[in-house]
Amino acid sequence: MSPVLYVVGLGPGAMEQITQEAQGALARATDVLGYDLYVTRAIALGIPEKTTIHMTDNREELDRARHALELAMQGRIPVVVSGGDSGVFGMASAVFEAVAGGPEVWRDIDIRIIPGVTAVLSVAARLGAPLGGDFCVISLSDNLKPWDLVARRLRLAAEAGLVIALYNPRSRSRPGQLDLGFATLREVLADGTPVAFARAIGRPAEQVEITTLARARGESADMSTLVLIGCAHTRVIERQGQNPWLYTLRRVP
Amino acid sequence: MSPVLYVVGLGPGAMEQITQEAQGALARATDVLGYDLYVTRAIALGIPEKTTIHMTDNREELDRARHALELAMQGRIPVVVSGGDSGVFGMASAVFEAVAGGPEVWRDIDIRIIPGVTAVLSVAARLGAPLGGDFCVISLSDNLKPWDLVARRLRLAAEAGLVIALYNPRSRSRPGQLDLGFATLREVLADGTPVAFARAIGRPAEQVEITTLARARGESADMSTLVLIGCAHTRVIERQGQNPWLYTLRRVP
Repeated sequence: MSPVLYVVGLGPGAMEQITQEAQGALARATDVLGYDLYVTRAIALGIPEKTTIHMTDNREELDRARHALELAMQGRIPVVVSGGDSGVFGMASAVFEAVAGGPEVWRDIDIRIIPGVTAVLSVAARLGAPLGGDFCVISLSDNLKPWDLVARRLRLAAEAGLVIALYNPRSRSRPGQLDLGFATLREVLADGTPVAFARAIGRPAEQVEITTLARARGESADMSTLVLIGCAHTRVIERQGQNPWLYTLRRVP
Repeated sequence: MSPVLYVVGLGPGAMEQITQEAQGALARATDVLGYDLYVTRAIALGIPEKTTIHMTDNREELDRARHALELAMQGRIPVVVSGGDSGVFGMASAVFEAVAGGPEVWRDIDIRIIPGVTAVLSVAARLGAPLGGDFCVISLSDNLKPWDLVARRLRLAAEAGLVIALYNPRSRSRPGQLDLGFATLREVLADGTPVAFARAIGRPAEQVEITTLARARGESADMSTLVLIGCAHTRVIERQGQNPWLYTLRRVP
């Protein structure tokens, strides 16, 4: 049997939003590797009793990927876990970066990426149907790319009329960037464009705030928030005593 | 109890890629509504024996949505099914369009959108990690928007350096548009930009073709294909006797 490595997306948080395929991979694990938040979730979802746990800090992604590849070569069955989908700002890319820079034999490993429900999908489901048209997913963090590029992407996405989902909108080390991002978007989009702040969707601390681009403030977001900015065809349905629904027209006149 | 309506994403095709939450909604259905392909899949996944089946043509989305809302008002538990995620070119948006244009009481319906793994995620997982950076999802169909807008979005997305996932790339009535799309992208992106054609991923007829933008031809796609176009930071890892892996660098220098 060729060595095997699983990279698994655990979904947005609610236990029942994991796929059976992901659950099946966890059940085979001899080793689980990941950021402690996600490893804890994997344990709660169910892994074999003798599985070795490797919790690491969120910033050591490439080291964790190499470690998992080495475990696979030793005949273990490592499972690297991410929240949401591992291919969307998760561990999958780090694993292939490690393969590209690693020994030739790592290319024979049977790397199985198990997709999951990424945050933008669970947030959209909670809000209504804001992704009814074309959309984009952008990480606002400048840890991995220059801020100028982030701002340029925001502007072009808005000019294209894409609904915009922002991952990693704010952190303690980047308190002001989301407001800069809103300022960039205001140069292109109408003041009334709907904006949603969706925090910890699918988890007990879940919170939703719906506002407009003119009123949107960065302080409404934290590390666990996904920010969704509508387009010219995003509509609001008001409801009594509840958050309004957002949806984007399928048809552009 | 207030009236309830489920809108459920069944995932990309493989049975084990559905979430437990979606499976739970199907188990409660008194009525299942959807395009015949997805209703058939829902039946295979498991619905109660006495559930009423409403199969309809793919083009009658707004009628189907209204029908489901009426069933909910009658105290039934209708479940509208889509492939992948219902919020991404699926039924969710049609349901809210129907609500917006329907009687006020429909706003009291407890509409539960159950997210699923949409095609771009399962395709990316099969290819490696091509969504490692920022990306966008665009429907190439001009059934619902003018072609000029599609072309403009492609150009701006390429200028922004987003990885591009194309849904509905080609149909019998639109045989030439994908080639027009490639021509537009070639004005912005390098000839060597990786392009993947991923057909029926997760189903028995699964097929993957990886090429470059210079060599990409529309005839490689059909209705069941998702086309993924990389960006300047998308890399190829060659492997002996197998499709290469694609991944996009997390870090933009």
